[in-house]
Amino acid sequence: MVEVLTLSKQEISGLLTMKEALTSVEEAYRAFGEGKAINPLAISFVVPRYYGEVDIKPAYIETIDCSGMKFAGGYWDNPKNYGLPSVIGIILLVDGKNGLPLAIMDGTQVGSYRTSAAGGVGAKYLARKDSENAAVIGTGNQGRMQLMALTEVFDIKLVKAYDLDLEGSKRYAEEMGRTYGIEVASAESARKAVKGADIIVTATPATSPVVQDAWIEPGTNINAIGADMPGKQELDPLIFRRAKAVVDYLPQCVEIGEIQHAVARGLLKEADVVEIGEIIAGKKKGRTSEDEITVFDSTGLGIQDVATAYAVYKLAMKRNVGKIIEFF
Amino acid sequence: MVEVLTLSKQEISGLLTMKEALTSVEEAYRAFGEGKAINPLAISFVVPRYYGEVDIKPAYIETIDCSGMKFAGGYWDNPKNYGLPSVIGIILLVDGKNGLPLAIMDGTQVGSYRTSAAGGVGAKYLARKDSENAAVIGTGNQGRMQLMALTEVFDIKLVKAYDLDLEGSKRYAEEMGRTYGIEVASAESARKAVKGADIIVTATPATSPVVQDAWIEPGTNINAIGADMPGKQELDPLIFRRAKAVVDYLPQCVEIGEIQHAVARGLLKEADVVEIGEIIAGKKKGRTSEDEITVFDSTGLGIQDVATAYAVYKLAMKRNVGKIIEFF
Repeated sequence: MVEVLTLSKQEISGLLTMKEALTSVEEAYRAFGEGKAINPLAISFVVPRYYGEVDIKPAYIETIDCSGMKFAGGYWDNPKNYGLPSVIGIILLVDGKNGLPLAIMDGTQVGSYRTSAAGGVGAKYLARKDSENAAVIGTGNQGRMQLMALTEVFDIKLVKAYDLDLEGSKRYAEEMGRTYGIEVASAESARKAVKGADIIVTATPATSPVVQDAWIEPGTNINAIGADMPGKQELDPLIFRRAKAVVDYLPQCVEIGEIQHAVARGLLKEADVVEIGEIIAGKKKGRTSEDEITVFDSTGLGIQDVATAYAVYKLAMKRNVGKIIEFF
Repeated sequence: MVEVLTLSKQEISGLLTMKEALTSVEEAYRAFGEGKAINPLAISFVVPRYYGEVDIKPAYIETIDCSGMKFAGGYWDNPKNYGLPSVIGIILLVDGKNGLPLAIMDGTQVGSYRTSAAGGVGAKYLARKDSENAAVIGTGNQGRMQLMALTEVFDIKLVKAYDLDLEGSKRYAEEMGRTYGIEVASAESARKAVKGADIIVTATPATSPVVQDAWIEPGTNINAIGADMPGKQELDPLIFRRAKAVVDYLPQCVEIGEIQHAVARGLLKEADVVEIGEIIAGKKKGRTSEDEITVFDSTGLGIQDVATAYAVYKLAMKRNVGKIIEFF
């Protein structure tokens, strides 16, 4: 009898902490940088009649001996048509030794944590150690989650938040200030938000630059989180003439990440781009001076999903959470 | 609350019939041929330390409004190391309208049926209507399943079976003869097995030809089922100089199917290859004469898994089979 653990979104919410997600994502990147993980390029396709897209991100990680994948649907009319979330993910976690399924779980919660943990890990290796001022552009769910990750890694004192939806950014400022007991202000423009920031986070669905090159001061780290499809763009590509470009996975970022535009326009050479896993594994350098400008282009990898799902699985087994089903 | 149906291998065994699988696969091919299905190329990777491979086959089918995928592990040391099957599959069935998971089920049983149903559908459109003599090369599980499919479609009277494992082919002859009440004989060689056959099925893991061009008589249909990876090969590629080549999906078969060798050697032009879905949809011709030799190269598509899993899902809901889990 093969037993498989199933975990709902609610059950995962009670198990997964940002600290666990940060560790999982950092170790997944490290394994990838050390050649101990397999991360095939994602499969994506659109379902035009329902304004939907499907993304499948598989992976295998040798250091935890697990494979698996996240199957995520993005159906942008779901809230309107069904009162359902736009993004619905399902994660399958598989024993790397023999292919047996270990767990099947909601992937929305894990996806949200692993994406924000990517920002936290990127900033850990790229931002100045004394970073305390952050700017968050895009104050939706991921803007909230990104701040949660940053506050785990840095002693953040001031956050300036900007969103096209000004009311939304005001709510964000109020909620986040209360949650973390720090000063969070809503800015009237992206320019005002990023002024003086040590760490800038962009977490929008933008398809043209929202942050201009001229605004960026020496020593800044930018976490570019939003771009994960061809055509998406949050940063002025001129930034890459003077910034160090760090990505999660070069072949993927060239296609769907923030760097796609700078590479296409010849402003950035692929040979000059570094993968975060290479830095974590000690093969390449992260920040090399107080004045360097760094950009972390995170598009999201299957290894992040598998590593974070594995952490959730271990916690669930330890605490007897979830339902067991028999597969055969 | 989103409820997801889970189905074990045993539960699926009680639901899925070859007739259902044949209909599902035929309709999936038809939808694909009509441009009403999306079948991205499979993602495959190997896990060398465990002599394993992972294959992920996703799909969306408009006519049943479902997407999904099969995640299949092939771990060739499983029987020896764990007493487990070599191939372990998991299928995720997703509502095409909004991305909600409908069902999660064992994929081994569905995989086995959809692969044999492919052979049945291929022969239905390619073999002579009066076919009654079959040869089965490779008498493992898939050799058994392929015969089950053929007996649903044709009035098979005589089967000659060959396997490198002669004892295995004798057991096959005895068991299959008893199961279907027809004459099934074990042959001493592949050549003797195929002599006089109207339909030849190859279902082996071979990497060099087991069926020679010189043995093939006019009017024969060959179902080439085994080749589904680079390097795999069951047929003398010279066959393709005189046979009509029909495949499940051209870009996939050129890489991993039986035709990979003939195309690489210039014996077969891609432009001369027809997809089975185009024939079923009435866009291209199948068999055009009693003397034509036809080869059906089946590598296995995600649309077959999704369509067959959907048939299982509908049967399970109707008969109240399976366990419901709550996802969120």
